[in-house]
Amino acid sequence: MDYKIFELGNCVLQSGATLRDAKLAYKTYGNLSADKSNVIVYPTWYSGQHYDNEWLIGEGMALDPEKYFIIIPNMLGNGLSSSPSNTPPPYDRARFPNVTFYDNVKLQHRLVTENFGIEKIALVVGWSMGAGQTYQWAVSYPDMVERIFPFCGSAKTSLHNFVFLEGVKAALQADSAWEAGWYKEQPTKGLRAVARVYAGWGFSQAFYREKIYIQQGYSSLEDFLVAFWEGFFLRRDANNLLTMLWTWQNGDIGKTPGFGSNFEQALGAIKAKAIVMPGQTDLYFPPEDNEYEVKYMPNALLRPIPSIWGHFAGGGANPVDTKFIDDSLKELLAS
Amino acid sequence: MDYKIFELGNCVLQSGATLRDAKLAYKTYGNLSADKSNVIVYPTWYSGQHYDNEWLIGEGMALDPEKYFIIIPNMLGNGLSSSPSNTPPPYDRARFPNVTFYDNVKLQHRLVTENFGIEKIALVVGWSMGAGQTYQWAVSYPDMVERIFPFCGSAKTSLHNFVFLEGVKAALQADSAWEAGWYKEQPTKGLRAVARVYAGWGFSQAFYREKIYIQQGYSSLEDFLVAFWEGFFLRRDANNLLTMLWTWQNGDIGKTPGFGSNFEQALGAIKAKAIVMPGQTDLYFPPEDNEYEVKYMPNALLRPIPSIWGHFAGGGANPVDTKFIDDSLKELLAS
Repeated sequence: MDYKIFELGNCVLQSGATLRDAKLAYKTYGNLSADKSNVIVYPTWYSGQHYDNEWLIGEGMALDPEKYFIIIPNMLGNGLSSSPSNTPPPYDRARFPNVTFYDNVKLQHRLVTENFGIEKIALVVGWSMGAGQTYQWAVSYPDMVERIFPFCGSAKTSLHNFVFLEGVKAALQADSAWEAGWYKEQPTKGLRAVARVYAGWGFSQAFYREKIYIQQGYSSLEDFLVAFWEGFFLRRDANNLLTMLWTWQNGDIGKTPGFGSNFEQALGAIKAKAIVMPGQTDLYFPPEDNEYEVKYMPNALLRPIPSIWGHFAGGGANPVDTKFIDDSLKELLAS
Repeated sequence: MDYKIFELGNCVLQSGATLRDAKLAYKTYGNLSADKSNVIVYPTWYSGQHYDNEWLIGEGMALDPEKYFIIIPNMLGNGLSSSPSNTPPPYDRARFPNVTFYDNVKLQHRLVTENFGIEKIALVVGWSMGAGQTYQWAVSYPDMVERIFPFCGSAKTSLHNFVFLEGVKAALQADSAWEAGWYKEQPTKGLRAVARVYAGWGFSQAFYREKIYIQQGYSSLEDFLVAFWEGFFLRRDANNLLTMLWTWQNGDIGKTPGFGSNFEQALGAIKAKAIVMPGQTDLYFPPEDNEYEVKYMPNALLRPIPSIWGHFAGGGANPVDTKFIDDSLKELLAS
C-alpha cells in the first residue's frame, strides 16, 4: 500500500446524510518546509487514483518534490477514499450517499489542517473533476489558497456536459446485471458500453481523424476501443462510477453555502491567482465555459491547450501537452 | 398508407448476400414534366421516414411541388422499405443482411429509371445519412445527376463518427432484452439509453447552454430528454436501427465498384454541381470533413450553416436554419 488513510469519523454531508467513519486516502510527495509554505494540493479525477496523477510530478517539473510538499487526496467514490465499494453496510454499494465537490473539499481541508497543521496552500491544481475540486477549494477557503490551476474542467458542470453523462449513466444502467446497484459481479456489458460511449467524447474528432491512437501503440481503432477504453472501465466498480458521476453532474461552486446558488458571485469570491486551462478541442469541457468563468474571476487568466487531444490533452499521455501545462504551472508558481 | 411500394425482386447486394423480394417504399410530390427534366430525389436519414422530409418541401420553397417532381425513397432498414422488421423469414430480424449506401442507391436508381423512365435528375438532396446517399448518387451515376446538395453528412464516415456510433450501438446491446436481435418485445431500456447517448451528440454545447429546448416547448432538460429523445427512439425497432447504423458506419463512396477504395478518386469523379452544407457546430459531421471533400470535388462549394443547433441545424425544427438551407437550394437549382 503506497498511500495513507486519514480517519474523519462521522461527517455530515451537504445533502444532510452522514458519512460514518469516513476515510480519506492520500499520498504525499516531498517534505513540508519548516514554515509550511510549500504546499500543493492536487485532487484526483473521475475514477482516477493518486498514482494516476503522478505524471505531472517530478524533479525539474513545476510540481517538484524537491521544492514542494504535494498532497494528493483521493476523491470520495474513487475506491480508495470512502466509496460504495469499501463502505460497510448499511451505507454500502447502492446506498452510498451523494457527495458534492463541497463535501470532498471540506474533508480534504480537515486532512490538510488537522493532520498537517497547514494554514496556507501555495497551489491547488487538478484535471477534469480535479479541476472541479480546485475551484471549490478557492471558493470554500479563499484566504487559504494562494493560486489555482484548474485544467480541462469547470466551476459548474454545463448542461451539455450533464447530458453527456446521462448517456454514460444510461449505458451502464441498461445492463440488467447492474441490478440497481446490488450486482453480485460487475455489470461488464454495461461497463464496456460506458467505455464505447466515452470513447467518442474523450478525444477530439481530429484525434481520430489523424489516428493518433496508432502512434500511441494501438494496432487499430477496435484495438484502441478494447485495450484502452474497455480496459479502462472494466477496472472500475459500477457503483463507484455512479457516485462520482453524481458528484460531477451536480458540480457548481454557486451551491457553496453562503452564495445562494449565485454562480457568478461565487466566481467573484475567488481570491487566488488563477490560470484556467481548457483543452482547445475538449468536447465536454469546451473553452467557452471557462471563458465565461474567467470574466467573473478577479485574478484569472484563460490559456487553452492548443491540442487535438480533446479532454485528454490534460491526461498526461502527450508530452507536448504536458510541457505546455507544466510551463504554465511554473509561471503561476513563480508569480 | 400515404406511400407506394416498388417491387424489386431479388437483389444481390454489395456484400454478396441476396435481398429477396426487395421493396422500396417511396412517395412523390408534384408532377413529372413531359420532358422529365424536373426531377428531385430526396433520400431519408437515420430512422427517418418519407414524411419526416416534408418540412423542406412546399409552395414557394426551393423544393416546390408546383415546379418539381420530388421523389422520396425510404432508406433500406427504415421500417417501410425492406427492413429487419418487415422482411419474412429466413432473412428477417437479426438475419437481415448488411446493406451499403451503394446498395440503397442502386435500388433507388431502378425505381427512378424502371418505374418512371427518368434519365436525368436535376437535384439529389439529403440530410445526414440522406447526404451519404446523395454523394453516392453522384458517384454511382455521374452522368445522370446534375446537382447535389448534401447537408450535415459526409461522403465517408469519419473514424470519430464511427466511434460515436459504437457508443450508440453498445448502449442498445447492453440491454439483455435485446437478445442478440431475437427479442420478443423491443428492448426499451436499451432504446432509452440510445436516446440519452444520442442527446449529447445531436445538438451542440451552445444549444444546451442557451437552453433552446425551453424555447422549443420542453419544460426542463429532463423533459427534453424524455419527451423528445426517448420518445424519438422508443418509436423505432432495434434491429432496424442496427441495420441503418451498419450502413452509416460503413459509408464510403470510395468503396463504389471501380474505385478500389480510393476515396479522393471517387470524389473527383463527381460531375454534379454541388453545394456541400455542414452544420457549423455539428459534433459528428464536423465541417472539417466536408472541407476536405470539397477540395477533391471538381464543382463544389462549401457553405456551413451558421447555427448552434449542431447536427439538427438540418433537422427542420429551426426556421432560421431552414431558410438558410432553402435559399442555397434555390441558388443551386437556378444555376
